[in-house]
Amino acid sequence: MPRPRTPLLDRRRIGAAALRLADEKGTLTIPALARSLGVAPSALYHHVSGRDEIISLMREELALTTEGADQDWSQPWDRALEDWARSYLAAFASHPGAVPLLAVAPLAEPFMHAMYEKVAALLLAAGFAENQVMPLVNALESFILGSALDLVSPPVMVSDVTRETTPHLSAVLDQTPTDRTRAERSFELGLGAMLAGFRYLLPDN
Amino acid sequence: MPRPRTPLLDRRRIGAAALRLADEKGTLTIPALARSLGVAPSALYHHVSGRDEIISLMREELALTTEGADQDWSQPWDRALEDWARSYLAAFASHPGAVPLLAVAPLAEPFMHAMYEKVAALLLAAGFAENQVMPLVNALESFILGSALDLVSPPVMVSDVTRETTPHLSAVLDQTPTDRTRAERSFELGLGAMLAGFRYLLPDN
Repeated sequence: MPRPRTPLLDRRRIGAAALRLADEKGTLTIPALARSLGVAPSALYHHVSGRDEIISLMREELALTTEGADQDWSQPWDRALEDWARSYLAAFASHPGAVPLLAVAPLAEPFMHAMYEKVAALLLAAGFAENQVMPLVNALESFILGSALDLVSPPVMVSDVTRETTPHLSAVLDQTPTDRTRAERSFELGLGAMLAGFRYLLPDN
Repeated sequence: MPRPRTPLLDRRRIGAAALRLADEKGTLTIPALARSLGVAPSALYHHVSGRDEIISLMREELALTTEGADQDWSQPWDRALEDWARSYLAAFASHPGAVPLLAVAPLAEPFMHAMYEKVAALLLAAGFAENQVMPLVNALESFILGSALDLVSPPVMVSDVTRETTPHLSAVLDQTPTDRTRAERSFELGLGAMLAGFRYLLPDN
């Protein structure tokens, strides 16, 4: 007689399927998720309370399947934040379709809180004020999310430019990569600029 | 006897409907757009060649319905870039569901090229190198797109935190606004930091 799957297995399957579906379609509905898992919507509700919990499972799956566990929080704050930003980008860039969904869902998961606890401790120890920490983290996250979308944009974003009417734009485009390094370079330049700007918020600067 | 609408009028209607649809659903399909306009998909193809052109019309509609025409490009570069970033954010924040779509579609529209021409001329005159300009603009755009998503996120993004296990996170959340000003403050702090970082790329710094 078949026994029900363990809840753990099912919850991981649900998270992985939801991540795949959101990534492909850019949206997530319970009926579509149930269909992709080959079950009835009512069966899904045996395992999750609703959409919010599914999004939590997607985050958990993303955290489990991407690097970042080797993050060294004992480095100088800007190095540690840079590493954190890079692994965050890698995670989101691997599932760009899910980025908008994940970006706007509240973070109630203890494993996410544990990660933010590390970041908050890092920045407070570096000398940032308590009221600067979350705005700083949010700003960096906004940059990372936007960069993840940029990474999956066409390598040549500004196309069919007319040299006569837009000479300056043409000149700078001539010096801009036409492959994936365009978005990678933008991320690196922006990350460096943002961290340099954060440094200036510290009292001893 | 009814005459066909002017192409101009129809194209604006298509752009406006597409923007509304993408904003509501987070996706855009030709059948859904045709349905929302009360026409057959084949009728849509009398006015647009396909999805790319519809996205162009959405951009045009967004540009026509948001502020920014009063942008003063004769200001110091960092002030001008700051104003540009703010009006860009306002445009995207008014149609957050369309942001992911618009973010990844190539920019082939002459009116968009004219805008980038202004930005490129501004940054070259400020002293940035030709190969720095597009990475710098792309990085700023990624930050703006991410911030637009943050602005439509719940005011309290990190919730249900346990003070005992995450004391630093709890301390910084105590000092973080719980309304829309959370995302607004993050944008302001990030914008200031990024511009300060850009300033350091200039040869005389």
